Amino acid sequence: MNRQHTYLINGGVDDAISPLDRGLSYGDGVFRTFKVVDCLPVNWPIQYQKLVSDCGAIGIVCPSAELLMAEIQMLFDLDETAVAKIIITRGLGERGYAPPAVTAPTRILIKSQMPVYPASHFQDGVALYTCRTPVAHQPMLAGIKHLNRLENVLARAECRDPSFIDGVMMDIDGHVIECTSANLFVRIGSHLYTPDLSKAGVAGVTRQRILDIAHYLHLSSEIKVLELQEVLSGDEVVICNSLYGVWQVRRIAEQVWPIGKLASELRELLRL
Amino acid sequence: MNRQHTYLINGGVDDAISPLDRGLSYGDGVFRTFKVVDCLPVNWPIQYQKLVSDCGAIGIVCPSAELLMAEIQMLFDLDETAVAKIIITRGLGERGYAPPAVTAPTRILIKSQMPVYPASHFQDGVALYTCRTPVAHQPMLAGIKHLNRLENVLARAECRDPSFIDGVMMDIDGHVIECTSANLFVRIGSHLYTPDLSKAGVAGVTRQRILDIAHYLHLSSEIKVLELQEVLSGDEVVICNSLYGVWQVRRIAEQVWPIGKLASELRELLRL
Repeated sequence: MNRQHTYLINGGVDDAISPLDRGLSYGDGVFRTFKVVDCLPVNWPIQYQKLVSDCGAIGIVCPSAELLMAEIQMLFDLDETAVAKIIITRGLGERGYAPPAVTAPTRILIKSQMPVYPASHFQDGVALYTCRTPVAHQPMLAGIKHLNRLENVLARAECRDPSFIDGVMMDIDGHVIECTSANLFVRIGSHLYTPDLSKAGVAGVTRQRILDIAHYLHLSSEIKVLELQEVLSGDEVVICNSLYGVWQVRRIAEQVWPIGKLASELRELLRL
Repeated sequence: MNRQHTYLINGGVDDAISPLDRGLSYGDGVFRTFKVVDCLPVNWPIQYQKLVSDCGAIGIVCPSAELLMAEIQMLFDLDETAVAKIIITRGLGERGYAPPAVTAPTRILIKSQMPVYPASHFQDGVALYTCRTPVAHQPMLAGIKHLNRLENVLARAECRDPSFIDGVMMDIDGHVIECTSANLFVRIGSHLYTPDLSKAGVAGVTRQRILDIAHYLHLSSEIKVLELQEVLSGDEVVICNSLYGVWQVRRIAEQVWPIGKLASELRELLRL
């Protein structure tokens, strides 16, 4: 297919979103983004489990894995690597915040071209800025990839300099949480730390996988409340998401690191 | 018109929302809700000014007042009182949080039937519950009626008992902020206080109007950080929004007040 994006809405190709959809009105829904290779979604069991868990956290019944998988196979082609985004909203609603007693969730599957990342991001690493927009504390929504993402939009809009590929977001106490579209790890000696997301942030699938496999690199992995200074004075910093896998961070604001091996070792382990 | 809802999208009657609209993807937009009587939006200059201000706060260029007014006059009928909701989103976007350098905002105008409120809400007052879902502190978005409203959805879903018509939301420090779809005032002697919204909450048009006219009732009006206990021990509590105007609060959780005159006096002054 030549179009930049194609999509299915509730399985249909001709549908569009109603202006009464609560996903639009209130950001009342969740989403996932992942690679699809030869019609197969990468890390599907973990992605689907997180989708179910995020839906459940806000009281939406997630469509079945079989239904979503059938639609992925309908929309994507063999011999193609592309990006899938699944959005599940609470569905149509009358005016007012109260969720309707009976709702039919809206499911949206969007196919996009795989971004073309510069080879240098993988070989040499990347630079990050620090965001002024804080991540608010909201324990009831922390960790969930929901559709209320204005903080990420404002934080990402702070820096237009293309030499900085993402920004580090901190909470209102100044603790490091994440990047606008990535999770973050810092290695200090033989310890690999990633920020505690119990008050704010999005807990990504690649973050979870790195926590699970770090021991293969003889690193202990731990979730921790992290000050920016602890990250800046760390031995190595990497960021991760489900599209590019893992990139080595060579610079955050004025702090510079030499080239390191952690990102490439993690990519190798993750086979990304 | 007999349909429950009718709408215009970018001025067109046949359009629908693209699944790539950033209003859906990220809640990247703002909205207003107000009454329209005989094709005339009530308090239009203040509503429009707030729409411009909220758009500006997140970097969206608001459509002109003339364009929006022309569309209101197209969608609404003479001899009709109905509800208008205007949604302005940042428009279509590629994948990724960074706002496109050039965007065409999406404007949505929805007409709904005027809710039929029980007469007792005006005559006798209403009861409120207290929400467990806190309002997060986010100074960059405080006061703005943006599309990231999951907190309100969760807070409103906490109580299904129809005898409680709304819930009082507090911030993570326990300070009273607002109701899920109303602002709140407490009278203590000759002082009328409404919560400080510099860290969280939505600053409504009716709240602003009450702050401006309270002196006609020989009340000093003031924005103040308010503990729940200060509200519960106040002489009178009222809530307000642009649809019902002002209602007297007779009960919050276990605290009960006798019937009072403040809401009816304010309604009279506001001519709502």
